[in-house]
Amino acid sequence: MAKKVLIVGGVAGGASAAARLRRLDENIEIIMFERDNYISYANCGLPYYIGGTIEEREKLLVQTPQAMKDRFRIDVRINSEVIAVDTAKSCVTIKSKDRGVYEENFDNLILSPGAKALRPNISGIENNRIYTLRNVPDTDKIKAFVEEKKPSGAVVIGGGFVGVEMAENLKEKGIKTCLVEAAPHILAPFDEDMVISAEREMAQNGVNLYLNDGIAGFTDTDCGVKVHLRSGKVLEAEMVILAMGVRPDTEFLRASGIELGERGHIKVNERLQTNIEGIYAVGDAIEGVDFVTGGKTAVALAGPANKQGRIAADNIAGIPSTFEGFLGTSIIKVFDLTAARTGANERTLKAAGIDYKTVHLYPMSHASYYPGAFNISLKLLFDMEGKILGAQAAGYEGVDKRIDVISTVMSLKGTTADLTKLDLSYAPPFSSAKDPVNMAGYAAENIRKGFSHITTWDEVFESEEDFVLLDVRNTEEYELGHMEGAVSLPLNELRNRMEELDKSQKVVVYCQVGIRGYIADRILTQNGYQVQNITGGYLSAKDYLY
Amino acid sequence: MAKKVLIVGGVAGGASAAARLRRLDENIEIIMFERDNYISYANCGLPYYIGGTIEEREKLLVQTPQAMKDRFRIDVRINSEVIAVDTAKSCVTIKSKDRGVYEENFDNLILSPGAKALRPNISGIENNRIYTLRNVPDTDKIKAFVEEKKPSGAVVIGGGFVGVEMAENLKEKGIKTCLVEAAPHILAPFDEDMVISAEREMAQNGVNLYLNDGIAGFTDTDCGVKVHLRSGKVLEAEMVILAMGVRPDTEFLRASGIELGERGHIKVNERLQTNIEGIYAVGDAIEGVDFVTGGKTAVALAGPANKQGRIAADNIAGIPSTFEGFLGTSIIKVFDLTAARTGANERTLKAAGIDYKTVHLYPMSHASYYPGAFNISLKLLFDMEGKILGAQAAGYEGVDKRIDVISTVMSLKGTTADLTKLDLSYAPPFSSAKDPVNMAGYAAENIRKGFSHITTWDEVFESEEDFVLLDVRNTEEYELGHMEGAVSLPLNELRNRMEELDKSQKVVVYCQVGIRGYIADRILTQNGYQVQNITGGYLSAKDYLY
Ligand SMILES: Cc1cc2nc3c(=O)[nH]c(=O)nc-3n(C[C@H](O)[C@H](O)[C@H](O)COP(=O)(O)OP(=O)(O)OC[C@H]3O[C@@H](n4cnc5c(N)ncnc54)[C@H](O)[C@@H]3O)c2cc1C
Ligand SMILES: Cc1cc2nc3c(=O)[nH]c(=O)nc-3n(C[C@H](O)[C@H](O)[C@H](O)COP(=O)(O)OP(=O)(O)OC[C@H]3O[C@@H](n4cnc5c(N)ncnc54)[C@H](O)[C@@H]3O)c2cc1C
Ligand SMILES: CC(C)(COP(=O)(O)OP(=O)(O)OC[C@H]1O[C@@H](n2cnc3c(N)ncnc32)[C@H](O)[C@@H]1OP(=O)(O)O)[C@@H](O)C(=O)NCCC(=O)NCCS
Ligand SMILES: CC(C)(COP(=O)(O)OP(=O)(O)OC[C@H]1O[C@@H](n2cnc3c(N)ncnc32)[C@H](O)[C@@H]1OP(=O)(O)O)[C@@H](O)C(=O)NCCC(=O)NCCS
Repeated sequence: MAKKVLIVGGVAGGASAAARLRRLDENIEIIMFERDNYISYANCGLPYYIGGTIEEREKLLVQTPQAMKDRFRIDVRINSEVIAVDTAKSCVTIKSKDRGVYEENFDNLILSPGAKALRPNISGIENNRIYTLRNVPDTDKIKAFVEEKKPSGAVVIGGGFVGVEMAENLKEKGIKTCLVEAAPHILAPFDEDMVISAEREMAQNGVNLYLNDGIAGFTDTDCGVKVHLRSGKVLEAEMVILAMGVRPDTEFLRASGIELGERGHIKVNERLQTNIEGIYAVGDAIEGVDFVTGGKTAVALAGPANKQGRIAADNIAGIPSTFEGFLGTSIIKVFDLTAARTGANERTLKAAGIDYKTVHLYPMSHASYYPGAFNISLKLLFDMEGKILGAQAAGYEGVDKRIDVISTVMSLKGTTADLTKLDLSYAPPFSSAKDPVNMAGYAAENIRKGFSHITTWDEVFESEEDFVLLDVRNTEEYELGHMEGAVSLPLNELRNRMEELDKSQKVVVYCQVGIRGYIADRILTQNGYQVQNITGGYLSAKDYLY
Repeated sequence: MAKKVLIVGGVAGGASAAARLRRLDENIEIIMFERDNYISYANCGLPYYIGGTIEEREKLLVQTPQAMKDRFRIDVRINSEVIAVDTAKSCVTIKSKDRGVYEENFDNLILSPGAKALRPNISGIENNRIYTLRNVPDTDKIKAFVEEKKPSGAVVIGGGFVGVEMAENLKEKGIKTCLVEAAPHILAPFDEDMVISAEREMAQNGVNLYLNDGIAGFTDTDCGVKVHLRSGKVLEAEMVILAMGVRPDTEFLRASGIELGERGHIKVNERLQTNIEGIYAVGDAIEGVDFVTGGKTAVALAGPANKQGRIAADNIAGIPSTFEGFLGTSIIKVFDLTAARTGANERTLKAAGIDYKTVHLYPMSHASYYPGAFNISLKLLFDMEGKILGAQAAGYEGVDKRIDVISTVMSLKGTTADLTKLDLSYAPPFSSAKDPVNMAGYAAENIRKGFSHITTWDEVFESEEDFVLLDVRNTEEYELGHMEGAVSLPLNELRNRMEELDKSQKVVVYCQVGIRGYIADRILTQNGYQVQNITGGYLSAKDYLY
């Protein structure tokens, strides 16, 4: 008899698994359960449909149950919630809108229930003007409110990817929007110095940011909600979007014997098998290995969910296939700016006790002499063995490309030396003869080999040692603005004037982005000075000082 | 005493070597000789300055001799041609505009003389309306002619990168432009099926292409040149751009004992050393190893030249550094289209006797439901061990990114399986949850593992076997246009109607881009049919039939 495979959840992970499984095996019986009315929808497009960039609702529905049946002979059962899994009897219990409660047995089970938006127990949170956004019904509600009630103001709570996207999209609809974030900065996957440009972009586009401020409670008003912040500030708006993060939607597994992590994530091995034979889990609901630190992590993103769905299907069909860990590559459009990242950030590395170095560069997105080039703010994290630990970038062009290339090197366990050797496509509209990624490699290798001695503004501000702070930019640049206490000595005069510097004192140099500082470092070091160059230069100081 | 290093050529390779060498060593004496009046200019920007996209001439001059002196203490000698190298005496002879002929000895010599535009011995070629483009003086001449004489028509001869860029830029100036190419197609680094879209883009933008037609000769007219083609056609225009390729500018080395290849390229090892100790060579003038085939090759591109300059400097300063071979990654803007490639193409692989497979995909540049997405035509060449041999892509967005990612995987000796695992950044404006590069990996792995049986239109057209040609698209798509002799059987009806097909006969299926054909392949194969799916589908047939 043919195998019978049940799938819980009909979107990114679940539908991908179903389609792949059918392609691999015409005979397996495949039943896919979905609690909601919709399968295979574009979660990631929901904010843009609300904002109007995506105009047609149907575009969000990538596959319908009928289409999945016609093409893949999948038995799709919508409005069907799996409420329990009996691992001993290999069967699940379904609560169906049409059929009531019934059971279905399985040879294999794939769990892709995804995650639920958090709705913490804050006073006044039960208010029908306070929305969360996860699926199509949520979207329909928000869209209807926005279109029909034409609110003039909204408050978004939470500065993660969904919160930032929603703030942008509400603004696009002409709604006065505030965003509240309890942490000191939005977009936690980025380091502080890398997220400032995104915050600036939001502010410049009229989103009011309330950082470092939590929610104390909500109260009703005649025509809206009052949002009470911990700081005592009160925001008022006709609608609130709660985007405070997600938790795995795994309540129904509590009694199943399927092992869950501390925060409710399903534990899986490299083959995406749970502790129960024959049962696989994928997507937002799972906990896996952090590719960089080796620790446990959970990454709620569509790329991994889709790929894992396919991997689980392969394993069930007898094709050994593995998921080797989360790099956490992610990207966000913030109005005209793009911010992207991969691997670990400073916070994660510190928490894992991993020693690291950083370089911060501002290379042009393409040849500077060809119109339309912008600086990319690019930060690379690596260790003294040349292992790449992570990268973050922000800018107006070519950010996705550089992060994807670095992520690819990391994925293949390449090193900073490998970055210098990449043969990346160059013509003036696209890059420079030495691509920003090559440059990051050069800068990192110079540190590793001891040619370049780097420090950061953080370290400089915290330092208790005595040093001279040397600004090696032109006099005009210095006069336009410089760091307090900095002495001006333009790079091109350094060779002739270096006796002005006291050899017994450490010299900390900076320039605009770090290149002239590096050259000054080279000149002074070879003349017996003890030098440090501030990576990212004055431009990165601006980010700190904002 | 400090080492003395001489550099021949002051642009991409030479100037890069000089700057790096100074950073590594404050004491070395560095003299850089440049035959022309200019150093460090943006060769790659020259066509765009002529076309007006780059407005200011100064932008082309990345560094000046004075700036190189001030910052790097390089003794830059312009208008100074090195006319001979005496390897026994370790000295060079210079013919200088100011100083006459003199000698200079060296401890190390770096050769970066670049290449010269070809000017074959064709009757009538000595005509001052026939230009070549390599450097700033060439550019000034062409620019002056275009601006002052306001020609109404131009003929570009040669469809390589420079020819295509010049045709585009002359067109941008409102000049009626023809492009003549002796080979059947322009842009030889691309395979025929991949270059059609670039030819179409040129034609649609008003460049008249004369393919498969060589030059018989030129004749003077009152106010222009007649270009006589081998076919007998005659084109008339006020100016002609000769862009027939380049040859290494190494005449001055003929008697030096420095080993040159058949076509005059300088032979070097991985460390970029010539056969003479202490003498290094880099850039367009060298011959190196093809990263994919292992054969000899020469790649005249700025990325390698710049990187090699730095590598030679490292080796001279005592830091072992290698150049492991040419991948030949390159890219070109053709009006709104981008075409890029890396590694070997079919021609190279056939010549090297390397067995290969191809997949041709048309994935969207970003999520199809988010506005502004375009199909990317993406072709991957690989072998049955999963080694990636090359890739080519054309499209309107995200082409550079995908080729750079694939080039990165190749550079790190990753496989088609690795392509499937890359964690590339995804949000709707940038990509899809499974990026086009992942998709190429999936498609290739399916072939390797025997799940997918691929053929190409080439093979189909040449096949002498009997087969049924099956169009599995919708009836409406079929009716809008299909291949001659194709039978229509829409994919979604296949399971119910497959008995209509004769099991004893091979079934060749196609759909629009190859995905439905692949699914049909899966269904039929599992039911005992012998199936082949045409990679790239009907869309790629259109490219052949153009
Ligand atoms: C607004 C928004 C924007 C996003 N943007 C991006 C982005 O730009 N890039 C990116 O990478 N990711 C993005 N994501 C995240 C991405 O959508 C998820 O990572 C991905 O969908 C996870 O796939 P999954 O299969 O694990 O869960 P889901 O796609 O959420 O699917 C789970 C499905 O299972 C159903 N289900 C749950 N429990 C049961 C049960 N017991 N029985 C039956 N059915 C059940 C649910 O109803 C749900 O439909 C975004 C998410 C949201 C909400
Ligand atoms: C119009 C044009 C567009 C291009 N576009 C691109 C592009 O988009 N992308 C890309 O990757 N590449 C492009 N290239 C190619 C790129 O410019 C070259 O690959 C690169 O400049 C090679 O560097 P090089 O140092 O070997 O030679 P060059 O940069 O040419 O420098 C060689 C220098 O040496 C001098 N010289 C030669 N012989 C002597 C001698 N005996 N004594 C003294 N001096 C000497 C020459 O005058 C010349 O200035 C383009 C080239 C041209 C001409
Ligand atoms: C659409 C969905 C059902 C997946 O279905 P799918 O059929 O696997 O679709 P994909 O486009 O991912 O897969 C394409 C298949 O075609 C193959 N393919 C693609 N191009 C091909 C070509 N030119 N030739 C041959 N095969 C090709 C791939 O190899 C893959 O097959 P495989 O998995 O058997 O190797 C699922 O991803 C989904 O529900 N998506 C929407 C929800 C979602 O992802 N939300 C979060 C992001 S917004
Ligand atoms: C400009 C030119 C002289 C090279 O000079 P260069 O000083 O090596 O310039 P680059 O920008 O390539 O190098 C930047 C240096 O700064 C370093 N750097 C870059 N960003 C940095 C940062 N943020 N912090 C520290 N160091 C940094 C790099 O590591 C590199 O130093 P290294 O080689 O010692 O490692 C040469 O490339 C040239 O003449 N170009 C024009 C001609 C040409 O290339 N034509 C063809 C293409 S159009």
